Amino acid sequence: MIRKKLVKEITSRNKDFSKWYIDVCLKSELIDYSDIKGFFIYLPYGYALWEKIQKFIDKKLKKNKHHNVYFPLFFTEKLFQQEKEHISGFAPETIKITHVGNKKLENILVIRPTSEVLFSQYFAKKIFSYRDLPKLFNQWCSVVRWEKNTKPFLRSKEFLWQEGHTAHSSSEEALKENFYILDLYKKLGKELLAIPFVSGRKTNLEKFNGAEITYSIEALMNDNQALQAGTSHYLGQRFAKAFQIKFQNTDLKKEFVYQTSWGISSRLIGAVIMIHGDDEGLVMPPYLAPIQIVIIPLQPKNERVVAEAKYFYQKLRKKYSVYLDEQDKNVGWKFSFYELKGVPIRLEIGFKDIENEEITVFTRYNLQKKVYSKKILFQNIPLLLEEIHQKMFQKAFEHLQQNIFIAKSYEDFKFYLKQRQGYIKMSVHENEAEKIIKLETGATARVILDEELITTICPITRKKATQTILFAKAY
Amino acid sequence: MIRKKLVKEITSRNKDFSKWYIDVCLKSELIDYSDIKGFFIYLPYGYALWEKIQKFIDKKLKKNKHHNVYFPLFFTEKLFQQEKEHISGFAPETIKITHVGNKKLENILVIRPTSEVLFSQYFAKKIFSYRDLPKLFNQWCSVVRWEKNTKPFLRSKEFLWQEGHTAHSSSEEALKENFYILDLYKKLGKELLAIPFVSGRKTNLEKFNGAEITYSIEALMNDNQALQAGTSHYLGQRFAKAFQIKFQNTDLKKEFVYQTSWGISSRLIGAVIMIHGDDEGLVMPPYLAPIQIVIIPLQPKNERVVAEAKYFYQKLRKKYSVYLDEQDKNVGWKFSFYELKGVPIRLEIGFKDIENEEITVFTRYNLQKKVYSKKILFQNIPLLLEEIHQKMFQKAFEHLQQNIFIAKSYEDFKFYLKQRQGYIKMSVHENEAEKIIKLETGATARVILDEELITTICPITRKKATQTILFAKAY
Repeated sequence: MIRKKLVKEITSRNKDFSKWYIDVCLKSELIDYSDIKGFFIYLPYGYALWEKIQKFIDKKLKKNKHHNVYFPLFFTEKLFQQEKEHISGFAPETIKITHVGNKKLENILVIRPTSEVLFSQYFAKKIFSYRDLPKLFNQWCSVVRWEKNTKPFLRSKEFLWQEGHTAHSSSEEALKENFYILDLYKKLGKELLAIPFVSGRKTNLEKFNGAEITYSIEALMNDNQALQAGTSHYLGQRFAKAFQIKFQNTDLKKEFVYQTSWGISSRLIGAVIMIHGDDEGLVMPPYLAPIQIVIIPLQPKNERVVAEAKYFYQKLRKKYSVYLDEQDKNVGWKFSFYELKGVPIRLEIGFKDIENEEITVFTRYNLQKKVYSKKILFQNIPLLLEEIHQKMFQKAFEHLQQNIFIAKSYEDFKFYLKQRQGYIKMSVHENEAEKIIKLETGATARVILDEELITTICPITRKKATQTILFAKAY
Repeated sequence: MIRKKLVKEITSRNKDFSKWYIDVCLKSELIDYSDIKGFFIYLPYGYALWEKIQKFIDKKLKKNKHHNVYFPLFFTEKLFQQEKEHISGFAPETIKITHVGNKKLENILVIRPTSEVLFSQYFAKKIFSYRDLPKLFNQWCSVVRWEKNTKPFLRSKEFLWQEGHTAHSSSEEALKENFYILDLYKKLGKELLAIPFVSGRKTNLEKFNGAEITYSIEALMNDNQALQAGTSHYLGQRFAKAFQIKFQNTDLKKEFVYQTSWGISSRLIGAVIMIHGDDEGLVMPPYLAPIQIVIIPLQPKNERVVAEAKYFYQKLRKKYSVYLDEQDKNVGWKFSFYELKGVPIRLEIGFKDIENEEITVFTRYNLQKKVYSKKILFQNIPLLLEEIHQKMFQKAFEHLQQNIFIAKSYEDFKFYLKQRQGYIKMSVHENEAEKIIKLETGATARVILDEELITTICPITRKKATQTILFAKAY
């Protein structure tokens, strides 16, 4: 009875995916609402996920000679206006500060929605020679964009992210940085989040305001809608020209630098929930999980059972993140609770197990139980974690593969979009076709694929097809 | 010549301590100015110090069952006004947001100067029973206070900090938390920053707005001015009453919770600079140092010398943070550069050293060189780092001890304040004497000491002395 109660609080995915998502976010205590619409509180369990993502990325960036910095939350509106295309994209959702107390400020300030202008100003002041390059900076912070239609993790007025800003002496080197980052983000998906990202170049209509090229990683949620999960922008010399960031090259000539910027955000947590979660709640990939193993004594008042549970706890905690739940609560309730939290492995310890020198292992991702001999359990834990991770990645990968549809006609396109959603691959005439599709179907160009054309003629415009694009409805 | 040039850029401490401080901050590339007065850019070397402080505190808090969270940057002014004494202290320097774009907001928002109200609101929503207690939350973030007279690290309009917010079922437990935190901060000083903190209770006039009691750690800079370096507030039931944070206790009765809040900030970096630094620049305590050891090949074009330098680099980098400077630059310039940066140990490798199987070790804190046999160097490095740390702590401790003066009369007090500065210890009649001293001398009560009275009569008011206070001029 108690077991059912907890789970019943979550709407089933088939009934209402969006409601299911909100239910899972709140009930598993990842996040909560604040007193202002569109702002969220990252609770311990949710923030722990962000810390794991930070740790993964931070370690690799530092190894690759990137440095963390912290640039201010505010800059002047005047500075923001220096790159015209850039500000045009952000102005409407940017917060301006005109007064402090009753005193009018000399310069209007904005709260950072992203920090290209501040880093560019700094680069202009500090870069003189090729010897000062590259500059490889990153910062972990929050940014503010006054978004409508907010949703936990996916879209909020303030969100946590990492923003990288680099300056280079050549276009080649800057592009190399872009691909290094894109690769790093894909690795994060493959090794930590168990998410297979699709990656590619954004179309001109979808790219970042102020970038020459935007590369992005995209993921397909379980409701077959797409989610942009991270971006790596090649800024070329645009900001360098706007901010006069020049360096003396090895031929003693003055040249503008080449820049990149890139970022991932707390959106990734939304992707993890929507890709792996099920009707029982969260399903945590094992290397991301804040609790990897939970130990439940089946008879929590029995000394021998508790002693055995503690033995396992002490042995496992040296290598894994383990939680022993000794609370005097209903065992069924506990099962549901940790299933809702998505804990990858549950060890159940009872009388019988102790007598048989066995242990019951429940794996969250497939909701299955298996009995292990106590002796081999310890050596099997790392294998089991790896197996769960691989199976989860594989499942997401298969879901992705099964939901990429090839459209040779606009009818095909509309059919897939209506019946299946997912990604629809089509070769189109740049810009024009994309605009028509967006207007008529709501689907957007996710990425341009580096693949051969499917058709030589664009099915939408009847003009020459110029590129093959993955379209989808997206969050 | 080149060696001198770098150092000459720094004003000497005796000439102008304040100018020396700014010079060191900027030239050693810890921090830079932003485009708005009072906002600072944390450069890689400065931010690395903050990361080390974070790591030290974060690890210990987590071990002690505290959880990291992230609460929003904004809350409504209405919420902020709920605890009257609290807002009275912060209102003048808080930034309000009334419009987004041209649209007037329904509720005026403020940018957090501190987050007691947001955490209290959350606690009120989520705490029902003693089973929900304690709540032990912490967040790493930045806060905004529109301060005048800003100075790198010490006082800025936005600063990095950690703010802890906890709720407990008893006053005793809350106070225990306060002392645990105070102790943790002192440990940070003792083990990482090499700073001996003085700690104690703040007077009623100096305590945090909204707290029942404020405990603080204080440090004495090299110019003999004091710096408040961290605080641990016992909030009692004030916020609980203002926000109706009630729990059912074990007797099934409703009771208000007891709260604490506490924090340290990037100010600590300012303290490290002003306590350990000298006329050559920074002096980094070895466990805080972003670079612990720098290796300088004295003949950087000579293959044998470079090979030897690389050998040391490879052996040391496994355990320490080492930098090998192979740049084709003047060796004297390099020496000055890493002295400016305060790198604790410099290894100099030249022809002679290789032949003699020796190595020259320069220690930054005492500016001394010593020759080691190559064989024993490796086993000596950890001892050397520890020795440097201890000596630095000891030096700061002696400076502190030598600059605590006991005043039995107001004349003594004024004499010490004028001639010596430092801390002046005096037994006074609460509040009244403190006000007079502040008004007439500019010195403030730093902490109340848990010590016997020096005089039974307060030398200022001629009333009964009630407590012994450490006074000082403070940053």
